[in-house]
Amino acid sequence: MRYELYYWPDIQGRGEFVRLALEEAGADYVDVARLPARRGMGMPALLRMLESPADPHPPFAPPFLKAGDLVIGQTANVLLYLGPRLHLAPRAESGRLWAHQLQLTIADFVSEIHDTHHPIAGSLYYEDQKPEAKRRAADFTRVRLPKFLAYFEGVLERNPRRGGHLAGGRLSYADLSMFQVVAGLRYAFPRAMARVMPDCPRLADLHDRVAARPRIAAYLASKRRVPFSEADVFRHYPELDG
Amino acid sequence: MRYELYYWPDIQGRGEFVRLALEEAGADYVDVARLPARRGMGMPALLRMLESPADPHPPFAPPFLKAGDLVIGQTANVLLYLGPRLHLAPRAESGRLWAHQLQLTIADFVSEIHDTHHPIAGSLYYEDQKPEAKRRAADFTRVRLPKFLAYFEGVLERNPRRGGHLAGGRLSYADLSMFQVVAGLRYAFPRAMARVMPDCPRLADLHDRVAARPRIAAYLASKRRVPFSEADVFRHYPELDG
Repeated sequence: MRYELYYWPDIQGRGEFVRLALEEAGADYVDVARLPARRGMGMPALLRMLESPADPHPPFAPPFLKAGDLVIGQTANVLLYLGPRLHLAPRAESGRLWAHQLQLTIADFVSEIHDTHHPIAGSLYYEDQKPEAKRRAADFTRVRLPKFLAYFEGVLERNPRRGGHLAGGRLSYADLSMFQVVAGLRYAFPRAMARVMPDCPRLADLHDRVAARPRIAAYLASKRRVPFSEADVFRHYPELDG
Repeated sequence: MRYELYYWPDIQGRGEFVRLALEEAGADYVDVARLPARRGMGMPALLRMLESPADPHPPFAPPFLKAGDLVIGQTANVLLYLGPRLHLAPRAESGRLWAHQLQLTIADFVSEIHDTHHPIAGSLYYEDQKPEAKRRAADFTRVRLPKFLAYFEGVLERNPRRGGHLAGGRLSYADLSMFQVVAGLRYAFPRAMARVMPDCPRLADLHDRVAARPRIAAYLASKRRVPFSEADVFRHYPELDG
């Protein structure tokens, strides 16, 4: 089956967690909005799906995945669906629930990361909420960032399977997402990360092992990987990196 | 099986979405932290589970559910697990993914509702972030509240099963959660809700039908239902209700 991923074409955003899973699996997929509109793709195709009045299962926002007749929204839900199909999730129900629980905690973390530069409203520019962003980012780098990273470091440490993965003994989509979060945080908050990451050797190692996987390395070096930018979730504003 | 719910004893919070599902199903469960510490329950039992160094699947935060040997965290994940077991989820995989997708969108909505009174930091008092809260709440009541409610109203309108439920032809945990959100929003933002709800007749009707279900009505009238308060997710601060 050819999967169709619908996401904003110019940012990594939340779509990147799905892209990384599809890339690692070597799945047959199209990143719809990044393809030309003249071929029936591009932003018009994304907007058509978002605004389709007939769809009984409308997504609230991108990313969403079309898999045959199914349209699945919410990043973690897309990965819940793809995980077993791409062999990127534990086999037993308990393991799948655990991988999904980790993904939902990553989603919470990503929301907090986003809100460091948009604490007041997504509809306003960063420049219109800069004093509030400074206050929120100061709490984030001092309190929330170390708390979340220590949690995930502890998950790696407690995993009885000892393979350096978050869930079970094999690579899962949660590991790929964790790579993305560490990479994004290093881009956005290099000074805060330089302080916190020495306490998280297992996370640093997981990041490096994911980045070195042949398909991920090829993807990161390709034009399919959108670069980090200040229009994205992970933004480097030195004034927020306390 | 007797389920053990672990959540803060004095607030509805995110635990309430799980409580409503357990109550509607008439499930055998204990709300651990609300029971006496002298019986091995209460806050000490909650903190013991949160701080257990041996648990290979530690939750990041309450609520979490103990079901036999399984410990499941993240509200939506708990409901994903309980849904089929309590007959509160569609039977087919596509329907289950759809109910879960709705629950995750409700979770995003709840996070935004929480952040109206805590836009800077959960570790600070409301009084320490009041100007920022006013700005965020103004955007919330003007932009985000109508957008989310119109989305869920549209989901009810598009459901081909016509039974007035969010997912499929029967009551699901998503309907129970939607009831809780409408009730909470009416408590927290009565003026904004009075403006928006006339455009959402299906949501108002869903709220009323859930509230009238015998087990839910009995629960809401009981002492098991924690009252709304200004220590909770839904807080009534008139100055935020533009």
